[in-house]
Amino acid sequence: MNIGMIGLGKMGFNLALNLKNNGHTVESFDLSEDARKRAAEEGIDTADSIDELLNKLEAPHVVWVMVPAGKPTDTVVSELIEKMKADDIIIEGGNSNYHDSMKRAQKSAEKGIHFLDVGTSGGTSGANQGACLMIGGNKEAFEKVEQAFKDVSVENGYLYAGESGSGHFLKMVHNGIEYGMMQAIGEGFQIVEKSQFHFDLAAVAKVWNNGSVIRSWLMELSESAFSKDAKLEGIKGVVDASGEAKWTLETALDLEVPAPVIALSLMMRNRSKEEDSFSAKVVAALRNEFGGHSVVRND
Amino acid sequence: MNIGMIGLGKMGFNLALNLKNNGHTVESFDLSEDARKRAAEEGIDTADSIDELLNKLEAPHVVWVMVPAGKPTDTVVSELIEKMKADDIIIEGGNSNYHDSMKRAQKSAEKGIHFLDVGTSGGTSGANQGACLMIGGNKEAFEKVEQAFKDVSVENGYLYAGESGSGHFLKMVHNGIEYGMMQAIGEGFQIVEKSQFHFDLAAVAKVWNNGSVIRSWLMELSESAFSKDAKLEGIKGVVDASGEAKWTLETALDLEVPAPVIALSLMMRNRSKEEDSFSAKVVAALRNEFGGHSVVRND
Amino acid sequence: MNIGMIGLGKMGFNLALNLKNNGHTVESFDLSEDARKRAAEEGIDTADSIDELLNKLEAPHVVWVMVPAGKPTDTVVSELIEKMKADDIIIEGGNSNYHDSMKRAQKSAEKGIHFLDVGTSGGTSGANQGACLMIGGNKEAFEKVEQAFKDVSVENGYLYAGESGSGHFLKMVHNGIEYGMMQAIGEGFQIVEKSQFHFDLAAVAKVWNNGSVIRSWLMELSESAFSKDAKLEGIKGVVDASGEAKWTLETALDLEVPAPVIALSLMMRNRSKEEDSFSAKVVAALRNEFGGHSVVRND
Amino acid sequence: MNIGMIGLGKMGFNLALNLKNNGHTVESFDLSEDARKRAAEEGIDTADSIDELLNKLEAPHVVWVMVPAGKPTDTVVSELIEKMKADDIIIEGGNSNYHDSMKRAQKSAEKGIHFLDVGTSGGTSGANQGACLMIGGNKEAFEKVEQAFKDVSVENGYLYAGESGSGHFLKMVHNGIEYGMMQAIGEGFQIVEKSQFHFDLAAVAKVWNNGSVIRSWLMELSESAFSKDAKLEGIKGVVDASGEAKWTLETALDLEVPAPVIALSLMMRNRSKEEDSFSAKVVAALRNEFGGHSVVRND
Repeated sequence: MNIGMIGLGKMGFNLALNLKNNGHTVESFDLSEDARKRAAEEGIDTADSIDELLNKLEAPHVVWVMVPAGKPTDTVVSELIEKMKADDIIIEGGNSNYHDSMKRAQKSAEKGIHFLDVGTSGGTSGANQGACLMIGGNKEAFEKVEQAFKDVSVENGYLYAGESGSGHFLKMVHNGIEYGMMQAIGEGFQIVEKSQFHFDLAAVAKVWNNGSVIRSWLMELSESAFSKDAKLEGIKGVVDASGEAKWTLETALDLEVPAPVIALSLMMRNRSKEEDSFSAKVVAALRNEFGGHSVVRND
Repeated sequence: MNIGMIGLGKMGFNLALNLKNNGHTVESFDLSEDARKRAAEEGIDTADSIDELLNKLEAPHVVWVMVPAGKPTDTVVSELIEKMKADDIIIEGGNSNYHDSMKRAQKSAEKGIHFLDVGTSGGTSGANQGACLMIGGNKEAFEKVEQAFKDVSVENGYLYAGESGSGHFLKMVHNGIEYGMMQAIGEGFQIVEKSQFHFDLAAVAKVWNNGSVIRSWLMELSESAFSKDAKLEGIKGVVDASGEAKWTLETALDLEVPAPVIALSLMMRNRSKEEDSFSAKVVAALRNEFGGHSVVRND
Repeated sequence: MNIGMIGLGKMGFNLALNLKNNGHTVESFDLSEDARKRAAEEGIDTADSIDELLNKLEAPHVVWVMVPAGKPTDTVVSELIEKMKADDIIIEGGNSNYHDSMKRAQKSAEKGIHFLDVGTSGGTSGANQGACLMIGGNKEAFEKVEQAFKDVSVENGYLYAGESGSGHFLKMVHNGIEYGMMQAIGEGFQIVEKSQFHFDLAAVAKVWNNGSVIRSWLMELSESAFSKDAKLEGIKGVVDASGEAKWTLETALDLEVPAPVIALSLMMRNRSKEEDSFSAKVVAALRNEFGGHSVVRND
Repeated sequence: MNIGMIGLGKMGFNLALNLKNNGHTVESFDLSEDARKRAAEEGIDTADSIDELLNKLEAPHVVWVMVPAGKPTDTVVSELIEKMKADDIIIEGGNSNYHDSMKRAQKSAEKGIHFLDVGTSGGTSGANQGACLMIGGNKEAFEKVEQAFKDVSVENGYLYAGESGSGHFLKMVHNGIEYGMMQAIGEGFQIVEKSQFHFDLAAVAKVWNNGSVIRSWLMELSESAFSKDAKLEGIKGVVDASGEAKWTLETALDLEVPAPVIALSLMMRNRSKEEDSFSAKVVAALRNEFGGHSVVRND
């Protein structure tokens, strides 16, 4: 198949390679010259602009967008809608909010362009060797490019999820679950690490990953992480969040679904980013007020 | 009434004063000479030992114990049980675990001594001017000393709660609720403080304390705290826990009562005491493993 | 002062009475004829339409809106902006989202109309006898109607909070704290109720409300509730939520403030509305899958 | 190797088969005649009493205990300690609390008996075809029976964890993580199920299990569960808990490790067992008290 890839960062670059390795003809573009150069070095054809990219592709055009969610995706998709024609297909594979994807699909449809929202999981190694794809949008459009999805994903690793928005919706919830699983694993290892026993954390992760109920890719990755740094002494416990767990939580609130584990997983990340906690200051001050409990003073 | 007070710390000293100001004859003892000296300066009679204290008191003896929970209470109560006689009354007003109080009541009963477990709330100012008392144990023994409880508490501020252990049980749950309320207040003020608006936190606490649904003593204390230090810049957000919320939580687990707010209130305190979070390290390491997300490194 | 009250429900009716009792001249309107009739019976002048209301009021007009948040407030405020003139003042006292209030203030300002967003707490009794008001918007406009705020609130019970939106923002966070406090109290009483002891819950609430650290209006109300129904056997544990705790939580997520207690307070309400829990079904099914643990079957 | 298996329930029976299939000579005992009969039908030698079992085994005796934690394990292990001799080995593979295992190891050691505490994961299929084992206790004793552990577990599926108690400690934390993962998965699927889209939950589980970050055995089991009952309509969302997550939480509290996800996972199970929630009743009653919010009445 003839496919244009816009965005040659960690994910887009590896997906482009993956497509090429599976026999597809890939044209590509990235705003960064460095990114284009790296792609070219791997034998991926690059264009200097979206216009050039579209010119190089056969009609109907199929363009896969892998740029950061939000503004960058907005800019690229808007330009594509402007420049593409009826029956062309936009594959939007970033971490976009499903509400945005629904609007973009709507706008695309006004010109007869098909917009597929594709949630992409599996990390960079997955993008390179076999991703997991959740795909929403027009079913016929999906079928036209299904072979590409099949080729870049692992076996059984792609799903036509339904109408527009459903692909990014599933990816969003996937990330909510991911946050919960990771926090559960983190809490467990902290209890293990603080215990009276003297465990080899990499060995613990390894045995938990072989035959236990909690065996999982995240446990494999835990083993890998502890193998490199037995007590994770080299890194700080500061964890950013990419937006999807927040959307999951907002969706849960809208649907009135209790989601305490997903909520707390996100909140503990937010807590990890605080140098000091204002709410804890308030509690400390109150204890001091009523009970004369000593407080820790800043010097 | 003739009452012995053992323990002249923040709570015991103020209770002794309170009893004396209400016309009771107070004998007192504390291991610390300084504490005894301070009591003596306020006109409270002091003894140099528990033996001397018991000698100075009329029979049947009534001794109020206000020493730290755990080992100190254990030591004092054991000595009292050894040295006191049938019909004597031990009032144990510390923050003891109700299971311990039930055992101590049992042991006391073997010698005919009455043991009243008294949960004491209201802080040091309450101890001085009017406390809140929750009292468990033999009802006749309670009635013999009821006047003292009435005198040192605010109006309607004492309750005969039932059999042994029930006083400390109620105080334990009271503290669980207290933790939850304080955490709720802390979270609220943090949201206020981080908002796009420019609030005067003391003024906010003041208005919330007049006519609102959340008016409460803790909100009064919030106003007081913010009046002294508008943004609490002088103190660190490090909050210790005294044990009772932990027992509340353990009791909730035993009773299979879901208590997420009490649980999280305690856990956020434990989090506030961590310089770095090992669980957050694990999550950061995992994100790095699968997505190449950057981590913050220790230098 | 000459004030129009739109909305004569539980809150608006009581506020109108309160204003009248404090010597203000109140004109009023409500879509419901019954509500108007009830107001008229209490001697409050009523109009049959917003137009008539405005005609009856002296210029510059001051109109206090107390209708449900969302659509009803939108409709009334839009009509008022259309029909009012420069220097008129709209007081919006409902439970509106502060983002909406900021937009309404903006729109009002385009015509020179002043829009004050007023968070109102204290329940219906507060509206009648002394409310708690948090007021955002133009300071000069606030000062023109300050006397009315002063008259209907308890002493120290109103606050000029700052620019537009800040009044409803404070009320929003107030409700977040309220949810947390209520959940803490609920959890505590459940532990008390399920315990091995035999407590009189009204008596427990009463003693906790006299001298303890957790004394508060909510504890007074707990005593009142248990006095009427000792074990709350007459009601179901189904708790609705009005929107403000959800907004508090969304704001906390936007500000990256960890707010676990507020989050869980809302989620436990959402849980209380579920007849069965789908997430619990999933967990039950998984336990059955790996361990053969029995599940409870629907018949 | 010559091994006695006590307890022929779901786990013990499958482990006995597994040992036998790997060439070990297995003697077995269970209090239930039915269980013994089923084992005999599968060619496993059974004894009618522990005495007979010990007689049939060669010295030094190796006995693997797979009976329910608590009282049953206590009874069996006590009898074994009484009847076994120095250098004999007890393998305790149930879900025991590690504190109990430490005490049992201590008692065994007084007679020179080696006690290995073995946390066993992988469910019944694991017990049959390849379990995951975490082993604490004397290292030399472990080495004497290591071959049996190796044979019944999957590759890399057993770990000598360290001193007595460490095996059951690891299994305990494993279960804490398991609870968190399951709750995260449950919440995610509930959000998916309640969404505006129309997902095939089995298909969703399948794609998430192929190439995604959350691929795991629990996700495989989710696919299996949804394949049998697409919306889990046949079962109720009532989830029991076996004790280990509670111990994990108690340990976390002792170690002052914040473990909100594990805590909430357990609490949501406890909530699922409540027909009605008393804490929710209290909150409903309070809302009614201050705001006149309607409550749902029991008829």
